[in-house]
Amino acid sequence: MPETSNAPQSAPQIRPNRLREIVANGGAAINGWLGIPSTLSVEVMAHQGWDSLTIDMQHGVVDYGDLVPMLTAISTTNTVPLVRAPWLEPGILGKILDAGAYGIICPMIETAADVENFVVATSYPPRGRRSMGPIRAGLFGGRDYAAHANQTVMRFAMIETAGALDNLDAILAVEGLDAVYIGPSDLSLALGRKPKFDQEDPLVLDAITHIGRATRAAGKIAGIHNGYPPYAKRMIGLGFNFVTVGTDTMFLVDGSRRMLTELREGS
Amino acid sequence: MPETSNAPQSAPQIRPNRLREIVANGGAAINGWLGIPSTLSVEVMAHQGWDSLTIDMQHGVVDYGDLVPMLTAISTTNTVPLVRAPWLEPGILGKILDAGAYGIICPMIETAADVENFVVATSYPPRGRRSMGPIRAGLFGGRDYAAHANQTVMRFAMIETAGALDNLDAILAVEGLDAVYIGPSDLSLALGRKPKFDQEDPLVLDAITHIGRATRAAGKIAGIHNGYPPYAKRMIGLGFNFVTVGTDTMFLVDGSRRMLTELREGS
Amino acid sequence: MPETSNAPQSAPQIRPNRLREIVANGGAAINGWLGIPSTLSVEVMAHQGWDSLTIDMQHGVVDYGDLVPMLTAISTTNTVPLVRAPWLEPGILGKILDAGAYGIICPMIETAADVENFVVATSYPPRGRRSMGPIRAGLFGGRDYAAHANQTVMRFAMIETAGALDNLDAILAVEGLDAVYIGPSDLSLALGRKPKFDQEDPLVLDAITHIGRATRAAGKIAGIHNGYPPYAKRMIGLGFNFVTVGTDTMFLVDGSRRMLTELREGS
Amino acid sequence: MPETSNAPQSAPQIRPNRLREIVANGGAAINGWLGIPSTLSVEVMAHQGWDSLTIDMQHGVVDYGDLVPMLTAISTTNTVPLVRAPWLEPGILGKILDAGAYGIICPMIETAADVENFVVATSYPPRGRRSMGPIRAGLFGGRDYAAHANQTVMRFAMIETAGALDNLDAILAVEGLDAVYIGPSDLSLALGRKPKFDQEDPLVLDAITHIGRATRAAGKIAGIHNGYPPYAKRMIGLGFNFVTVGTDTMFLVDGSRRMLTELREGS
Amino acid sequence: MPETSNAPQSAPQIRPNRLREIVANGGAAINGWLGIPSTLSVEVMAHQGWDSLTIDMQHGVVDYGDLVPMLTAISTTNTVPLVRAPWLEPGILGKILDAGAYGIICPMIETAADVENFVVATSYPPRGRRSMGPIRAGLFGGRDYAAHANQTVMRFAMIETAGALDNLDAILAVEGLDAVYIGPSDLSLALGRKPKFDQEDPLVLDAITHIGRATRAAGKIAGIHNGYPPYAKRMIGLGFNFVTVGTDTMFLVDGSRRMLTELREGS
Amino acid sequence: MPETSNAPQSAPQIRPNRLREIVANGGAAINGWLGIPSTLSVEVMAHQGWDSLTIDMQHGVVDYGDLVPMLTAISTTNTVPLVRAPWLEPGILGKILDAGAYGIICPMIETAADVENFVVATSYPPRGRRSMGPIRAGLFGGRDYAAHANQTVMRFAMIETAGALDNLDAILAVEGLDAVYIGPSDLSLALGRKPKFDQEDPLVLDAITHIGRATRAAGKIAGIHNGYPPYAKRMIGLGFNFVTVGTDTMFLVDGSRRMLTELREGS
Repeated sequence: MPETSNAPQSAPQIRPNRLREIVANGGAAINGWLGIPSTLSVEVMAHQGWDSLTIDMQHGVVDYGDLVPMLTAISTTNTVPLVRAPWLEPGILGKILDAGAYGIICPMIETAADVENFVVATSYPPRGRRSMGPIRAGLFGGRDYAAHANQTVMRFAMIETAGALDNLDAILAVEGLDAVYIGPSDLSLALGRKPKFDQEDPLVLDAITHIGRATRAAGKIAGIHNGYPPYAKRMIGLGFNFVTVGTDTMFLVDGSRRMLTELREGS
Repeated sequence: MPETSNAPQSAPQIRPNRLREIVANGGAAINGWLGIPSTLSVEVMAHQGWDSLTIDMQHGVVDYGDLVPMLTAISTTNTVPLVRAPWLEPGILGKILDAGAYGIICPMIETAADVENFVVATSYPPRGRRSMGPIRAGLFGGRDYAAHANQTVMRFAMIETAGALDNLDAILAVEGLDAVYIGPSDLSLALGRKPKFDQEDPLVLDAITHIGRATRAAGKIAGIHNGYPPYAKRMIGLGFNFVTVGTDTMFLVDGSRRMLTELREGS
Repeated sequence: MPETSNAPQSAPQIRPNRLREIVANGGAAINGWLGIPSTLSVEVMAHQGWDSLTIDMQHGVVDYGDLVPMLTAISTTNTVPLVRAPWLEPGILGKILDAGAYGIICPMIETAADVENFVVATSYPPRGRRSMGPIRAGLFGGRDYAAHANQTVMRFAMIETAGALDNLDAILAVEGLDAVYIGPSDLSLALGRKPKFDQEDPLVLDAITHIGRATRAAGKIAGIHNGYPPYAKRMIGLGFNFVTVGTDTMFLVDGSRRMLTELREGS
Repeated sequence: MPETSNAPQSAPQIRPNRLREIVANGGAAINGWLGIPSTLSVEVMAHQGWDSLTIDMQHGVVDYGDLVPMLTAISTTNTVPLVRAPWLEPGILGKILDAGAYGIICPMIETAADVENFVVATSYPPRGRRSMGPIRAGLFGGRDYAAHANQTVMRFAMIETAGALDNLDAILAVEGLDAVYIGPSDLSLALGRKPKFDQEDPLVLDAITHIGRATRAAGKIAGIHNGYPPYAKRMIGLGFNFVTVGTDTMFLVDGSRRMLTELREGS
Repeated sequence: MPETSNAPQSAPQIRPNRLREIVANGGAAINGWLGIPSTLSVEVMAHQGWDSLTIDMQHGVVDYGDLVPMLTAISTTNTVPLVRAPWLEPGILGKILDAGAYGIICPMIETAADVENFVVATSYPPRGRRSMGPIRAGLFGGRDYAAHANQTVMRFAMIETAGALDNLDAILAVEGLDAVYIGPSDLSLALGRKPKFDQEDPLVLDAITHIGRATRAAGKIAGIHNGYPPYAKRMIGLGFNFVTVGTDTMFLVDGSRRMLTELREGS
Repeated sequence: MPETSNAPQSAPQIRPNRLREIVANGGAAINGWLGIPSTLSVEVMAHQGWDSLTIDMQHGVVDYGDLVPMLTAISTTNTVPLVRAPWLEPGILGKILDAGAYGIICPMIETAADVENFVVATSYPPRGRRSMGPIRAGLFGGRDYAAHANQTVMRFAMIETAGALDNLDAILAVEGLDAVYIGPSDLSLALGRKPKFDQEDPLVLDAITHIGRATRAAGKIAGIHNGYPPYAKRMIGLGFNFVTVGTDTMFLVDGSRRMLTELREGS
């Protein structure tokens, strides 16, 4: 629907991606995580000051029908809206971007070919094969969205399998990939360890450290999923510049337990 | 639709109301609060160990269409499902009970006549005029629900206005009212103070203390809405035996702020 | 939005109400009952040959947000769409008609004043005070909907309380009321009997017989809610010309039980 | 839930109501109208430059469950969110404001007592009896929402009946009413004329002119619902400073008809 | 669920596909486009006289959960319901047909193998591998739906890439493909031009002309997406016999802009 | 989010799968079928005593957004929740398990490679590649869900094509497959017969008998979809130990027809 105009476009008339700016300025972006399919919980979270919020379509119970109003709810603030895709499938990747996500975290990337497919599906020609029709993205990004989307939206490849570890250099070499995102729970399982966040197992920690360094050395953003702030700080110390802490459901669990424990201990 | 059977009913075949049991045993029930219209957030909350959870149809953004699956989500656990009604209106009160709530907190009660209307709307004949048709309540409560509902569901009158304070004795004298529930924010406003929870203003504290004592003296349950556990403990010390702490949205706010503060202070 | 045209209207250009035609031809209309808020179940039911289907907003778990697509689903067939209102409240009565219901069953009518309020809320001036804006009703009823709605939509007063029995003659005398609808379960309770459908208790049967005769004698349609066909046939024999049998949830219960019993007995 | 802080508040820390500013500067606000319960259509409309958009809960097929994400969608822009209430009922009026509406248009006002009830239900004490708990309104309006809401949200009384015409002076004298809004279709009916917008009938035009002048003379905002711009311009010429044109469904109808006519005429 | 009966079927007892009739009679079908996931907007559009309406699951923000009631809404009229699929994936293609679509537009077809996969996924054996279970399609199409669906539903292959242009002859040769549908925006991009509808660029116009002629020469329906009627008329002149104009969101944008411009210019 | 704990786990702390127990005890499980996307209909069905209920995402009109609250509704009882997947696609298979299904029926399995992909997508490492994040499954299954999920959830391969018949032995030899499920309608079509349930055609009956025997001989569960109890009993006699009868929509159709026939015949 939204055609690009025929007018000359000296400066891009697209809403800039603040995540790119934070990282370009040497900062580390702090990302929150959303699994509850409700516009209210999203809007509450978006007002708390997160640099970005990621709607989880893989392990969150979020469907595409939920996604669109959730992205709208984030857009009431200047928090950057990201989405973790359910799977590397071109149909849903296009729909996520059309809905106005400014970045996609793609799970279970194993090879450079996976990354290439990911980039192709999320880039307009000539780089890729994304189809034109950014219905809500045009509202969010502005009139020149179509012309500048390729350079604005961000592509995160999840590194969470043994295969991905082996293929890391090739993965990082794919043009158009912006960032790597470590899923520590799956990565631990892949390395024969207990699945968990904030992992202290040396084998896993070594792998995390290696991925972080290689990613930054390749000029890309290094991201990692964490449970709590102390571990996230260590990761920033290791060079990661995109760190997730907390999730909406974790806040419900932790908050409930803290209150119930305090009340029942004292009574 | 659900007829009561013609069989003799020596012992009630209805799911008992655990809140009544907790209070009858001298305990204080700990209640959580729900304003997010999502079955996932409700099911997460219901698994944390709250004695009861109240779905807020007044100030929560919850509509009747949301309410029914939220009550279903609570019913996956033995947490007692309560609802704060949007208003003292017989149509919605009946629908809330038919959906399977085991208690209703009714806002803005001012007079004994209000309580009488509340009890009538929520009781089957001969005590009241509730209409027969407990479509989901019959699933939740069991086959004898209709015969025993009047004695099982609980009726909480909110005391939060100057008028209610003046009429407290008459309010407490209405047969069929089970409990009083203080809304400290509105009560503070009504007394010319800042609206807030966990109020320390002496005038409001005096009123709270008075309401709690009068309620227990009348043989009814004394409930109050609180922000955090320390204040709730003080209220239990004053004789309150139904205390709310926390809300789902507060957990999102508090959890986000704690994490963001910790991460940004140290970076 | 929908203005009536300025063209002369010799014959009404509104979709006729087939229920009125069935009854005018001396027939008895057979009505089904809907409590499941899903467009699929409604569309399945609408294709089975019911003369009318009533969406139950009182005891069904149906909200206004569910109602509109349910009415749309009925409109894929020529089954007449009716709605039982949650309560005698002008706001919701107007919204139900604007959504395209061709008849409203209003619960808990007790007095002639109740009926008058019901007729006023559901009739355009000069008879009533219904507000103009039949957004979906105009699609369903056609361009002249507004001009002929008063004579097309049907108003059913539920008779289910002792008060209504006492005031029956006055209720039937209100101009604009089209029909009476007996709720046997509430009526039984009101008369001190067990709440049930297909009632055999003589006191209740006498009341039912009396209401049916008085209603037909007053030139109005006599309706009654039944469980199963044999009883509905007896009611038709008594002069009732609008009989409900079955409900969507009852079909799920009866069908499941029949199959499970047959399978488990034989295994 | 959201307490007001204890900090001194020299300047209000609440999002200002741009409608009040437009009118204070001598302008006429241009309002659009929403009846489709979808966040996408709302977000599209909100990006077109309307001063305000009114979500119609009376004749639109919009329920409270739809309303909240629709208000969120408007909040992605600086368009002012208004709601037409389904009816003068305190429960829903409070819920609409808690959801973040910055103004309410209340239908079928007839007397000064109606207006008083309207103002009381939508104002915090001491002026009114609105209950504290602006869950989404606090996100939208900011931390000081509760302290300044009474002066920020706007109250529009619909004048659309003969009774309201008779009582106009008394209606306009109620403190706390900000504006009058004419419903020309109902007003026409009330005066015995065809219900329509952009009415040319002299009797109705005289009434409209009279209401507009009396309202402005009373220092209040004069609003009117129109079909198309030429009529709205005439109304501005008469002194009206809040004019509605168009509705989302009308745009679908007009756009479809224009295209189909053009294509079929020429083929 | 719906078995086909064992009775002899001389004449097909399936609802005919009016689009096939229009085209067989030498006409050009006029198609509207739907991206708003609301039953109300769909029902309004369906009453305006479009030959068919296409629900866009690719670039519209429409999910499968939205699709089903939207198809139901179209079925209140005799407008033919079509769906653009999100992607060439057998699971969703089958679900779209089971929901009652009478045609599918499949995006990003590049090769004859793509078309073959498309036809196989949308045809029952022996031609294809569609699985039996037309739950809503059986309601819409009638009892013999399963026996005649292969010949009734229509398959449109989108031609919008350089690859598809190269493979056009092979694509058109696949048995079971009914129509071609040009996406001018993606096709322009693929040819190195600005993405837009109603394209005047000679290179793109030549390609469009070529595709149209080849398609009609192959005995298939030639379809194209257009912005406005004048261009659609030119396309009909070129031999296209299925033309889309307008979309629901475009009508909101155009209608708003026209009104706001007219009002603000004159004020 | 859900880490597995570090504590020693002598006995599995996961909710056992009752279907496995029924079958291990030599019984035949009786399964019901759900195609209506409503929590109410699901909760009603779950209370009728089915051993398991299968939510049909292939031919039912159920989307992932509907699935989650439907699984929650089943969890109010001890009925085992199963899901038929829309297609063999890893993204949706993982999401179904994360939502708390205790078994998946996968349609259109043709080869051993299909089964291997199915098992890999639904098993955590080292057996498979399912990603860790059982957000609702952790609530339903308990804290040790992740450690024991591979042995608890059940995998049913649908046998309904000629290819699957040919490859039956290889299919049954795949480690991790728990059961086979016959779709008689598609199987009939594949064998050149009319698609129907409760098939009496000898060719199809022979195939069914063969599949049942081979499956049990391979030590796996033999399941089949049936229309009515008598046929299901015969299948149990043939060795099938998982039989489906009835569906929610069939109960609506059968119940309506029975009542309407009885009423109209006698009138």
